[in-house]
Amino acid sequence: MEIPINKFLYNGKKQFSIQKEKHKISDFYEDKSGYESMLSANVKKLDTLQSMMYAHDRYGLLVILQAMDAAGKDGTIKHVLSGVNPMGVDIFSFKKPSEEELSHDFMWRTTLRLPQRGRIGVFNRSYYEEVLVVRVHPEILKEYQHIPEELKQNTAQVWEHRYEDIRAFEKYLHRNGIRIVKIFLNVSKQEQAARFLERLTEPAKNWKFSEADLKEREYWGDYMEAYETMINQTATPEAPWFVVPADDKKNARLIVSAILVNAMSAMQMSFPEIDEVRMTELMKYKEMLEKEI
Amino acid sequence: MEIPINKFLYNGKKQFSIQKEKHKISDFYEDKSGYESMLSANVKKLDTLQSMMYAHDRYGLLVILQAMDAAGKDGTIKHVLSGVNPMGVDIFSFKKPSEEELSHDFMWRTTLRLPQRGRIGVFNRSYYEEVLVVRVHPEILKEYQHIPEELKQNTAQVWEHRYEDIRAFEKYLHRNGIRIVKIFLNVSKQEQAARFLERLTEPAKNWKFSEADLKEREYWGDYMEAYETMINQTATPEAPWFVVPADDKKNARLIVSAILVNAMSAMQMSFPEIDEVRMTELMKYKEMLEKEI
Repeated sequence: MEIPINKFLYNGKKQFSIQKEKHKISDFYEDKSGYESMLSANVKKLDTLQSMMYAHDRYGLLVILQAMDAAGKDGTIKHVLSGVNPMGVDIFSFKKPSEEELSHDFMWRTTLRLPQRGRIGVFNRSYYEEVLVVRVHPEILKEYQHIPEELKQNTAQVWEHRYEDIRAFEKYLHRNGIRIVKIFLNVSKQEQAARFLERLTEPAKNWKFSEADLKEREYWGDYMEAYETMINQTATPEAPWFVVPADDKKNARLIVSAILVNAMSAMQMSFPEIDEVRMTELMKYKEMLEKEI
Repeated sequence: MEIPINKFLYNGKKQFSIQKEKHKISDFYEDKSGYESMLSANVKKLDTLQSMMYAHDRYGLLVILQAMDAAGKDGTIKHVLSGVNPMGVDIFSFKKPSEEELSHDFMWRTTLRLPQRGRIGVFNRSYYEEVLVVRVHPEILKEYQHIPEELKQNTAQVWEHRYEDIRAFEKYLHRNGIRIVKIFLNVSKQEQAARFLERLTEPAKNWKFSEADLKEREYWGDYMEAYETMINQTATPEAPWFVVPADDKKNARLIVSAILVNAMSAMQMSFPEIDEVRMTELMKYKEMLEKEI
């Protein structure tokens, strides 16, 4: 079944309203084995496209994953990218910034990790945290971020500037051959509760439980507002957002895999062409080597 | 003598015409010892300001130096910054990009080297080479830069986009507390010839001579055009250009030192304040330590 990814696309042309979004839609798969064969077909396509991207050596793909805790970011990365040549994939999970990172501009630490041409780079969380967790907890801006006072007194302006700076930066990356897809795994508050509960009841998942996550849950409404504004402010044709219903993990993974296949298929690329002169050379080397066998 | 740095300032308000610029102006110093005492007074101020910037831990200073060969970039850095605590100064000379650097967006390699808060970072050449040497030799863009074909077919648009992206990036840095001054050491073609000649006649300077520099000299007119457009396109209030007459090295150094002192004096900073509670604590520790002596 073809997955209509445009249903989930926000590229600045339509308004995004988080209230109207569904956390669960009809499944694109019939059963577990149907899911598995659909996913593996897409993973195979991704692997082929990545090989071509590597040989062509012009484009890079940056995938940004943002979501509430337990929305399935780690699982999505694991299932969608296992099977793609790991030499062509770089995954970075951004945690609380270090002292060194805080002593730079807010996009410095992520820029260091940008994918080279020919590679898929995945940001598990990203500079978008600067307009999510920092917006929900403005005391982080006030107390921890080392920005000069004069530049952060007007908090509303700080967010406006960050949206503007992010838009400009992503446009710049696009112009340099880095294709960007941004994915918001949209899980419901109820489903998050169920997944937290699972972390408490299943011994193998105990390690994943953290009181801090439970505390952040209290700010659910603030987060949803921050996500809505962020998506409306930073969805552009060059760096679109996809809002993926995430209450069903399998469905979410299928959608994400289709989004990545689509993004890479749109790259104008081919394996480097071999002209006649080069082909004659190659045939000469072939002959030389054949004599040694 | 006070150095009127605004005479050399371009911040987007007035047009820059390279034809009208002087390579040599009346000296700000009377004699060698006058020069030395003026320079060392400014170096001392820079050192004090840098200590304060470090303690305050909010601002950073990025100094970008661009110029034709033999204009005196290295000498300026040496003379203006020797005497400032080297722990607070990072200097990077950007050469021909490596393969790894080419496989990223064009500002990636310079971003890695941006100064932390509290520090002075000097870029000896910078991302501006992307609209200077690459503009004068568009074959670099066509043959060496790994940007997708579709994105570099319209060369004129590539330069426009680069100016726009650089403006946006520098505005972003400013918003994050990084103050930027950009300096063009404006040497004349005749003075360059004299300095190249010196490199051939003085044994201690022989190592500095390179045929490649002589070859670039043939493109003088194209370079001047590229500098003019670059400065007009990227001079902004947040990241101004200073065009410094560079035929007299000593005068140029004095001007540059005054520009840096000015930039750091404009930062709204002070040593972190100690309140009464903290002062009482400090006095307690003082007493404790005194018992151990």
